[in-house]
Formats: sequence, structure tokens, C-alpha cells
Amino acid sequence: MSRQGLGHIKRFSLDAKKLKNRNIENMIGCVQVPLGIAGPLRVNKKEYELPLATTEGALVASVNRGCKVIRLSGGCLAEVERVGATRGPVFKVKGVREGKKLIEWLKQNEKEVKQVVREGEKYIELLRMKPKMVGRNVYVRLEMETEEAMGMNMVTVATEKVAKLVKKKLKIECVSLSGNYCVDKKPSWLNFIEGRGKQVWAEVRVGRRVVKEVLKTEPEKIVEVVYRKQLLGSIMSGSMGFNGHYANVVAGMFLATGQDMAQVVEGSLGVTTAELEGKDLYFSIYLPSLMVGVIGGGTGLETQKEALGIMGLDKAKKGDSLRLAEVIGGAVLTGELSLTAALASQDLAKAHERLGRGK
Amino acid sequence: MSRQGLGHIKRFSLDAKKLKNRNIENMIGCVQVPLGIAGPLRVNKKEYELPLATTEGALVASVNRGCKVIRLSGGCLAEVERVGATRGPVFKVKGVREGKKLIEWLKQNEKEVKQVVREGEKYIELLRMKPKMVGRNVYVRLEMETEEAMGMNMVTVATEKVAKLVKKKLKIECVSLSGNYCVDKKPSWLNFIEGRGKQVWAEVRVGRRVVKEVLKTEPEKIVEVVYRKQLLGSIMSGSMGFNGHYANVVAGMFLATGQDMAQVVEGSLGVTTAELEGKDLYFSIYLPSLMVGVIGGGTGLETQKEALGIMGLDKAKKGDSLRLAEVIGGAVLTGELSLTAALASQDLAKAHERLGRGK
Amino acid sequence: MSRQGLGHIKRFSLDAKKLKNRNIENMIGCVQVPLGIAGPLRVNKKEYELPLATTEGALVASVNRGCKVIRLSGGCLAEVERVGATRGPVFKVKGVREGKKLIEWLKQNEKEVKQVVREGEKYIELLRMKPKMVGRNVYVRLEMETEEAMGMNMVTVATEKVAKLVKKKLKIECVSLSGNYCVDKKPSWLNFIEGRGKQVWAEVRVGRRVVKEVLKTEPEKIVEVVYRKQLLGSIMSGSMGFNGHYANVVAGMFLATGQDMAQVVEGSLGVTTAELEGKDLYFSIYLPSLMVGVIGGGTGLETQKEALGIMGLDKAKKGDSLRLAEVIGGAVLTGELSLTAALASQDLAKAHERLGRGK
Amino acid sequence: MSRQGLGHIKRFSLDAKKLKNRNIENMIGCVQVPLGIAGPLRVNKKEYELPLATTEGALVASVNRGCKVIRLSGGCLAEVERVGATRGPVFKVKGVREGKKLIEWLKQNEKEVKQVVREGEKYIELLRMKPKMVGRNVYVRLEMETEEAMGMNMVTVATEKVAKLVKKKLKIECVSLSGNYCVDKKPSWLNFIEGRGKQVWAEVRVGRRVVKEVLKTEPEKIVEVVYRKQLLGSIMSGSMGFNGHYANVVAGMFLATGQDMAQVVEGSLGVTTAELEGKDLYFSIYLPSLMVGVIGGGTGLETQKEALGIMGLDKAKKGDSLRLAEVIGGAVLTGELSLTAALASQDLAKAHERLGRGK
Repeated sequence: MSRQGLGHIKRFSLDAKKLKNRNIENMIGCVQVPLGIAGPLRVNKKEYELPLATTEGALVASVNRGCKVIRLSGGCLAEVERVGATRGPVFKVKGVREGKKLIEWLKQNEKEVKQVVREGEKYIELLRMKPKMVGRNVYVRLEMETEEAMGMNMVTVATEKVAKLVKKKLKIECVSLSGNYCVDKKPSWLNFIEGRGKQVWAEVRVGRRVVKEVLKTEPEKIVEVVYRKQLLGSIMSGSMGFNGHYANVVAGMFLATGQDMAQVVEGSLGVTTAELEGKDLYFSIYLPSLMVGVIGGGTGLETQKEALGIMGLDKAKKGDSLRLAEVIGGAVLTGELSLTAALASQDLAKAHERLGRGK
Repeated sequence: MSRQGLGHIKRFSLDAKKLKNRNIENMIGCVQVPLGIAGPLRVNKKEYELPLATTEGALVASVNRGCKVIRLSGGCLAEVERVGATRGPVFKVKGVREGKKLIEWLKQNEKEVKQVVREGEKYIELLRMKPKMVGRNVYVRLEMETEEAMGMNMVTVATEKVAKLVKKKLKIECVSLSGNYCVDKKPSWLNFIEGRGKQVWAEVRVGRRVVKEVLKTEPEKIVEVVYRKQLLGSIMSGSMGFNGHYANVVAGMFLATGQDMAQVVEGSLGVTTAELEGKDLYFSIYLPSLMVGVIGGGTGLETQKEALGIMGLDKAKKGDSLRLAEVIGGAVLTGELSLTAALASQDLAKAHERLGRGK
Repeated sequence: MSRQGLGHIKRFSLDAKKLKNRNIENMIGCVQVPLGIAGPLRVNKKEYELPLATTEGALVASVNRGCKVIRLSGGCLAEVERVGATRGPVFKVKGVREGKKLIEWLKQNEKEVKQVVREGEKYIELLRMKPKMVGRNVYVRLEMETEEAMGMNMVTVATEKVAKLVKKKLKIECVSLSGNYCVDKKPSWLNFIEGRGKQVWAEVRVGRRVVKEVLKTEPEKIVEVVYRKQLLGSIMSGSMGFNGHYANVVAGMFLATGQDMAQVVEGSLGVTTAELEGKDLYFSIYLPSLMVGVIGGGTGLETQKEALGIMGLDKAKKGDSLRLAEVIGGAVLTGELSLTAALASQDLAKAHERLGRGK
Repeated sequence: MSRQGLGHIKRFSLDAKKLKNRNIENMIGCVQVPLGIAGPLRVNKKEYELPLATTEGALVASVNRGCKVIRLSGGCLAEVERVGATRGPVFKVKGVREGKKLIEWLKQNEKEVKQVVREGEKYIELLRMKPKMVGRNVYVRLEMETEEAMGMNMVTVATEKVAKLVKKKLKIECVSLSGNYCVDKKPSWLNFIEGRGKQVWAEVRVGRRVVKEVLKTEPEKIVEVVYRKQLLGSIMSGSMGFNGHYANVVAGMFLATGQDMAQVVEGSLGVTTAELEGKDLYFSIYLPSLMVGVIGGGTGLETQKEALGIMGLDKAKKGDSLRLAEVIGGAVLTGELSLTAALASQDLAKAHERLGRGK
């Protein structure tokens, strides 16, 4: 490789010293990704401008249009439920008997396990353990509260402590700290069904007139697209994503705010619904598995911190990770509504042609 | 929002004029993401340094370690098969009879459909059409060759032409240009089974001594982790990702080279295998659904183009998108091997603690 | 065990000599399963009485009610498409290179492979081969036409011939004649997407008045139940069965007519849709993977043959297996419609209480 | 239809009067299915002869061979865990707020809900409620203990009471008593992950010599087939059945003992593992979702009751449904082991040819 001519990569303003051995190794510079603003988004009676980092033309414009619809509809509602960050180590047992012994022991000694998790870590708490046995394997899904951090590093360290405790007490070996029962950065029904990180629901009611004037289509047509595409189309393709393009918005918000980009995978699982309410439109999204934080990971980088600041979330105050989840939920709702409307009004190809190609 | 104090976001070197209405709207600046280098990776007898953009500590170091193992093993092998970019519009029919008529018509008139796709576009070719009917819906998966571009914009525009032809000839309406039978940016068994974009296989044989000295573990232990975690663990969690962390490497390479970050979702599907060969290790990865290009999208941005240049892929020469797929395949292989070894040697939590926390 | 007191089991009229080493080993008698009749079902302008063997009260009555609705609606439509019986052996290769060699060889030598399949078997024909590679494994889905037989025995024998040919020509070993790429007697997206045996679509339009008078509910309510239960409910539970109770009807018809009861598993996959057409109801079912025959297996047993005779399918004439698939498709449609209506009219628990408990 | 010539169907010994309005309607007679005996199977230190009703040649012989292997290995171990029969009604709410209200209410009023379930039914108890919300829908998985009965009828009646209570207290309507969150008679990840009815694990250790002498193969080859077929093959086909042929054994036992044949669908989900223990073989099966009973349904029919009697389970004593689950688990283990060995020793096609065709 010639590292000559990396003129742009080398032109960055992040503090390389702080990044070293924390966020990156062998750093040679930075890539720059354009940051656009959509909004304001009105969610739960507050307003936020949305920072989206993307190279996909039309995305910011689409979310922006959605935000306008939401505002004209009096705002959207978002509900967040903490599930906790999870690790699912795999223990190797001699067989079913020893497996049941381990499961029983965990149930009987939950208090001690919780204590071990907290040792030397004040920001973490074990919430629940869910074991699963097959053959000579016991998987244990450890759900942990990690406050305002996404928290996987903490959770991994805590999991190691649990594994050591199990080994000491039962002489049962943990073969792998992650047994893919976590399930980190992979799509899975386990996360879909049980939730992971935060579960987010968002919904809005849009009057018929707003649908017509801003979205250039009708409630019935949006309901039809959701039925034929997001539901039936996803069914026919064996998908876990019963939505139009959650991944676009999740990736844009994650990249802007320093989240772990590999967690876009599970973060974009979910289900869109649309129904008629009289002559108006009810529209909703559901994200079962959103891993986000406002401290740790890439959230402290200068540009990412500024992006969090645009939403007032750069101080990592108590509850800010919930608020971030709310805002992302609302942003996903607006992006989904706008895309669905574009498909319903036969406008997608035109938008792609216009905005994706510099026309 | 106060856009005051966006000092870092506003400090960028990309050409904002070129980005406007092509890659972003309402641009207020850029986020910077640290870029690290791993390698060289020896794949198919060539060597590449790997640009990875990430904020996740330990990732570059891990891939780098994998590259060393690969070099000491004489390099890895990667095979790429073009499937084509796909769109799956949904047509609304009166019922099963009309549905079969549409399917029959597409079969009989493939030549005309292909012609329509090419009109005014020299970089696109319709390869195959795969229809699927349910109730009053016909989904048609259109697989298209798009040369060195990832190509979804082109494919969407071409799909609109096909939809217009169908409407003109059969009076059958396309309800949505994307019927989620594409399947773009969602995990799906359809992509897993049929492939999408490029399918990539990569493999390496690693001698026992190299496993011990560089990876600090044994072939048997790596085989065991793959069996209990990547295979059985993913089975028990109802996952579509039978791997350790493809998403980390795919996201890092995608971000560095200007790919569509939402396509990390399908790009990180896949299956890892590990077997003993005598006393040595056979290790492989498989990516069924990798959507990548070296022209279009974010690949032309200055920093991203430089990152492609690190691998000699910045000129978008014929075959470069295949080469990019090969290199990503090799990079995923090294990252997967290194992580699996870290789990086998009980080293994961330590690495996280050391590299992810600036220690 | 005391085989004393097996008075009823020993009281059977099947010809035990014919069963031995063909249908059963260590035979001690027979179980008797009640056979009920529903119908006539009007499908594709013909009428059939439906034999259903079951011990689940309310099933025959429910299908019978559906048949009445269908008759009052002028009959239903069923379309069948032959996919072929499939086996998916797994070949062990040295790696990706040898894997591609095998796949290429199969493509180049399709004619010879087809010849080998036909040798000494006049009722079988290889239609297509679909290979899939991962690591050191190549799976090949062999789709075969088996005329009026379900045909798995024939297909297995033919697969062995193909495996021997591959071994002779390429020195590549078949590790298992079934590599679960068949996919026999397991639910799978591969069968769902590609189809297996026969694919069946059936549909009916039911006037509003008939829905009200016979089904005691309204088209809107049926549409709503299908949306909230069969589609959304199945989505939320990670199901492959987007239907109410296909398995009940499929099991009842399979048992009556001597089909392989383990193939109820894949035979009951599928998707129900319901839509309003003006003020009337459009209702459809889709079975992607129905393995049925009218010769071989249990179809020749005296009682089962008589049950086939009720539908005029006991002579195994050309096309009779397609007709059986049509009739099963129609029966599933009626059963699904009737159950959905019972749920919509809040009548399910009452029916269970009345018919399932002898009241 | 001519019901002439139904000579065999009309020759039955079941008491038609008892069946009417309980197990069947419009009864015209019975089908007879051959019943074979395999065994004795040694499970948890007891021995059982296994009644299997089937028309698939080679099945009884295969299970019988497995039983011999188990006996020579000192018996197998089976563990059963009660999950409970489940119904998952769907409630229609105005939106996320009302949905959360319902979920909260259920949590707060669990005691009252449990009371309502028990009213007038002494054999049923509500164990747990698991709610899931999406859009304007709340699904509630009700897990109920039903003693020695499979219990779906009881559970449905109890679910109606819960729905009425919810309506009375919250004015929230249950749209469908089954919202496919049950999940009855469909394959689903929800049942796979949470379990349904009974979860069963069974395992055995088989000495190398027994594998060689009785199964005509080697432990290594059985491990290899399980890896390449049951695990990897099922992964590649997007299956929920990571096994060889659980459905065959489950269907054979269900049919013999009067279980609900449509529940073979969920009953045959599950995962097989095989590992080397030194030079010997460890082999296991796992059934997450087995719905069985020894009272109610078809279990009281004369021939089915006699078949239960062969195993000493015809009196429906306390714990007998657990015992039945244990025995089925053991039977599935033997059938799976025998089939896998036949594939490993390349003997499947031969067995099919010999036993399935009367040779």
C-alpha cells in the first residue's frame, strides 16, 4: 500500500490520542460521512432535530418530510421499555443431568450471581437469567441494566465473572463467553421475541387531508402497501424485517451519534402496521432490539458528541439513553411513513432518480 | 436546536457541492470516523491492506492478528459468485388465474422485458425473474447485473420500466415497486437461500503450530467453539447469522469504502465452519448476500475513494467490485478466525477490557 | 408387556400379509380412527365428498360448514403446480475449489445424471438440480417427477445412483443421502420458497349475505381476524405457518387416504389471505409443500383405498395425484374459512365445548 | 358419492355412540392403520414396549434396532419439563398507551385472572401470562397446567373467560381467542424458544463396540452425519427441525395413542446432537414443544387405549402424561440414532428398497 495521497483521510479534527486503544488501533486518519438534519421531530410533546449521517441520497429528505407530517398531526408517541444488554455464554456439561443441576443452581443462587456482577462496577446490574439446554450445552442469557451506556463491554466483563463463579462452585466450564445466545449483531428470533437493549414502539394518527396534501396519496393506499409489502412480502421472503427500511434510519442515526454500526443488524428488526381509523391513518413501528447509549463506544468522539448535542443528549444525563431510543423510534416512524407513502404514490423511482443521482 | 458549537462537524474536507442532492440533503457538515489499517491480507495470491472505519476498540487489532495467521498459512482462498442486485415489486391481481397469467406472460416475454430494462441504461442487464404468488399478489424477484456499481438506484429505475410494461400489456397494477421480495436491508431466508449481490466463500488451512503460537489456542478448541456457539448457539436462538461477528468486519469495511451502511444487515448473514484436517485447522466463512460496488453511492467521496485506493480499487475498473467482495470475504474470514480463537482461549473479556477501554 | 387384552387392536380387516415388510414390521394389529364425511366440496367445477379421519371433535363439522359456503358461492378455484419430490444429499469436498468443481460438473453433465436416475425406473424423472455450498459441503437438491406416487422411496433410490455416479466420476463422497436439503418432514424456508411436491393455491369469493347467514359474521371481521391472527400473530411468534389450522385438515385428509403422516409437517406450511371485494369477501389459502400420492405408501390399504374411492381417486389414473392435491387445497380452504369465521363470531370456545366434549 | 363398497371402512369395533359429537361428526366408519411394536425401550430404568401406528415401512424396524442399542447401553435418560398448554388470544387496543395499560393490568391482577381460569374447572391452572404488543394489538400467551390431559379444549374455554374479564374490566375487545401466539399446530420460534406442553430431553452413551456391531458404523461417522445433515443441512435450508426424522416417530406414537395428529407439526421440532466421548458416542435429542395427554381427545378410543395400555399408561394416573412424554422422547432418540447410523453406513436406500417395497 502507498499511504501517499491519503490527503483527505489524514485531515481530521478528532483527538487521535484519546481514540488509541479505546476506539481504534493502527489509526491512519478518519473517513468523513456527510451529516444532514431533518426535523424538528415532535415526539412525546418535545421537539428534536435529527442528525443523520449517510451517503444515500433522499434519506434525509424523506425523514424530513415524515417529520412535517408528524408535526401537522400533533406529534407522535413513543414508548420505550428497557430489557437490558445481554450476553449468552455457553457452558459445557456432561449431559442433561448436569445441565439441570446448573440451571437449578443459577435459580437458587441468583443473589450471589447478582453480587458478583456488581463487584467493582457501579453501573451494571443483573436483571434476569434465562437458561436453555440442548445436549451437553447450557446457554444462559444474562440480561443486564447498564444505565446510559450501550454496555456490551461491561456486560462481557461481568459475564466472565459469572463464568468464573460457576466454574468455582460447580466445576462446569464456560466454553465461550458468547454462545450466540446474546444475540449480538446477528438477526435472531430470540431478540425479536424477548427484546434486547431497548424495545421501542412509536405511533401516529395522520388526518386524511395531511396524507393527501403532504404525502400525495391516501390512507387506504398506505394501508395497502403495508399489507402487501411490509407484511405479506416479508412473509413470502422469510424475512425477520417486516418493515420498509428501518435499517436506513437506524444506520443514519447510529452513525451520527457514535453507536456500534454492527448493531444496526438487530436494531433494524421490527414490524410496521398501518390501519384506517375512520377516514384517517393510524401508523406504527416496533423495534424489539435497539442497543443504544449516550456514553461509551463512539459517543464521546467530537463530531458524534456534537450530533448528540443537537438533540440535547450530549451530557449523558440519567434517562438520556431512553430519550435517544425514543427519538430513534420517532425517526424510524417518520422515515417509514414517508417511504411507504412514496411507494404508494408511485414516487420512489422518481425520488431515487432525482436525489440519488445529483439531478 | 442550536447549531452553534458544531465546530468539529463543520470541519470537513469533502466537496459539499458534489454531495448535494446526490448523497445528502440539508447537510450541516460531516461526522468523522476513525480509520485503522489491518493487514496485509493475502487472498487469492494477492496482498491487500484493509481499511476499517470503526469506533469499536479491538476490531482492527483482531483483524490484523487474523491477517498474520493467514499470511503464515500461505494466504486464504476466496470465491465470488455474482447473483445480481435484486428488486421484488408486488403486482396486484384479481386472483390466482390472473396471477398465473402474469407469471406465464413474464416467462413468454422475457426478451422484451430484458430489452425494456436496458433502454437508456448501458450498465444494467436483467438476468433472471423469479415470481411468487399468494392470494391476489404476485411478487417478481428481478435479478440484475449492474457491473461495478452496487446498483440499487439503477435497478429501481429499471423495475419501474418493467412495471409500466406489465401495466400496458396486461392492465395489471404494480402496488409497490418494492414488495419486500428484494430483499433490501432486511434479513431474509430468500437472500440466504438464493443469494443477492455477490455470494462469497473464503477459507484457509492453518497449521497446528500457527494456531498455538499466534492464536494461543488449539485447533480442537476453535472447532468446539464454532460448533457450540456459531452453529448450536445460533440454532437455539433462532438466528440467521451462524457466525461470530461478521457484522463488525462488514460494517468496518463498508463504512471505510462508502458502501450503503443499511446493507450491513443482509451483508452480515452467513455461516462459519471449522473442521480438523489431521492435526491442523480448516476454517471457512460464507456470505450469501453481499451488496457492494466501487462506483456510485458513497464510493466517490474523497475519504472513501482514498480508502478504496489503499486496496487499489479506486479506479472502478472492470472486475473491481468482485475484487472488493473477495477482499471483504477474506477480511471477514480473518476477523472471524481471530475472534473465535479469542473466545477459545478465554481472552475475549480481557481484550475488551484492554482495548475497548483505553487501558 | 402383556399383549393380553388387545381385543380391539387385533380386530382388523386389512390383509396383514400384504402389509408385512412393506408398510409395517412387528405388526400386532391395527388402530382404528373414526372417518367422517364433509361436503360435497365444489372445486374447479367438480364435486367431491371429503373423507377426514380424526379424533378431534368439530373438525368434520367445520369443514362441512365451509363446503356449504363454497357451494353457495358457486364453488372454489384451486391451482396446482408440480414441483417434484426432492432429496438433498450432502457431499463432502476438500474445500471451496472442489465444491465448485462438483457444482460445475453437475451442470455440464445433467444429461448423464438424468439418465442414471431413469435406469430401471420408468416412473421417475429428474427435473432440476439446485446445489448449495458451505465450507466443505455441497448440498444438491434433486427435484424429481414421480407421477401419481408421492415417491420418496423411489427418489431415495435414485439419489443413491446419483451419489454413486459422482463418486465414480469425481471421487467425491456422499456423506449422507439426505443432507436435510430435501427437506423431508421438517418445516423449512427452502420448501416454503422453492415449493416441494405440489404447490396448491385455492380461493373463493363469498357474498356478504352468505357470510352473514351461514358463517354468522361479516366479511370485515373475517378480514380483520386474518390480519391480526394469521398474519400479524404468526409474525410475532416467528412462525412458518401463516394460517389458522391447515394442519387439522391436512392431517385428517392424509390419514384418511394413506399419506405419510410425518409429511403433515411440511404439508401444513402456508399463508391465508382475506380481502374485501366491494362488500363481499375474497378468501385464499396457499400450500407450498404438499407431498401426496394415490399409489404407494399407505394408499393401497383397504380402508384408505376406499377413502380415495369416495373421491373417485382409487384407480391411480394419470393426473389423480394432482386432483388429490386440488381437493386437499379446497378442503383446507373450507376448513380455514370456517374456523376464521368461528373466531370472528366468537364461536370457537362454544364449538369446542359442544362438539369436543360430547355435549 | 357412492358409499357402496365401503366394506372395510364400515368394519370397525369402536363404539360409535361414544364418538359422536365428541371425536367426530358425520361418521361413516373407521380407517385402520397397522400397529407395530418396537422395544423394549429402557428409559429412566424402566422398560416399555412401544406401539407405533404407521404405513411407512422400515420405521418400526428402525426404532426397534435403536431400542436394542439403548438396552445394550444400559438404557437412556429422559428429562421432561412441564411448560403448560398455551393459548395466545389477540386483543385490539386503541394504540400503544392502551396496550401498555392492558399489559400492566394483567400484571397487577394476575390473581383474579387465575381465579377466573379455575372457575368450574378443577383440572386447570394458569401458570404464566406473557404479553406482546405491536401496533394496536396485544397478544397474551397464557400458559396453563392441564394435568394428564393435552388440554387445548379446556384452555380455549378458560381463555374465553379471561377475554370476558378483560372486556368487563377494561372495555378491551378480544378479536380472536387464538391470535397465533399460542402457537397451536404451526411451527414457530416462539414454541421452540419458550417451549410448549412438555419439553423433553433424552440422551444415551453408546460404546464403540455396540455402534460397530449393531449399527454397523462408527461413532465418528455418526457425529459427522449429525454435523453435516442435522445441523449444517438444516441451517442451509432455513429449517426449524434440526433433526433427521423426529416427525416419523412422533407421528407413529401419536397415532397409536390417540394424540392430536395436527400437533405432530410442533411436536417434531427439535435438535439432535452427537459428540465423541473418548472413543464412544454421546447422542441426544431435544423436543421443545410436545403436546400430549393420556386422557381426553382420542386417547379414550378402544384401540388407542389399548395401545396406551401396552405402556401401562391407560389409567391416566397422576404423572402419566409426563411418563408418556418421557417414552416418546426415548422413542425419538432411538429412531433418530438408528436412522443416522443407517445414513452413516450408507444403508438408507437399501432399507427403503427392502422394507418399503415388500421385498
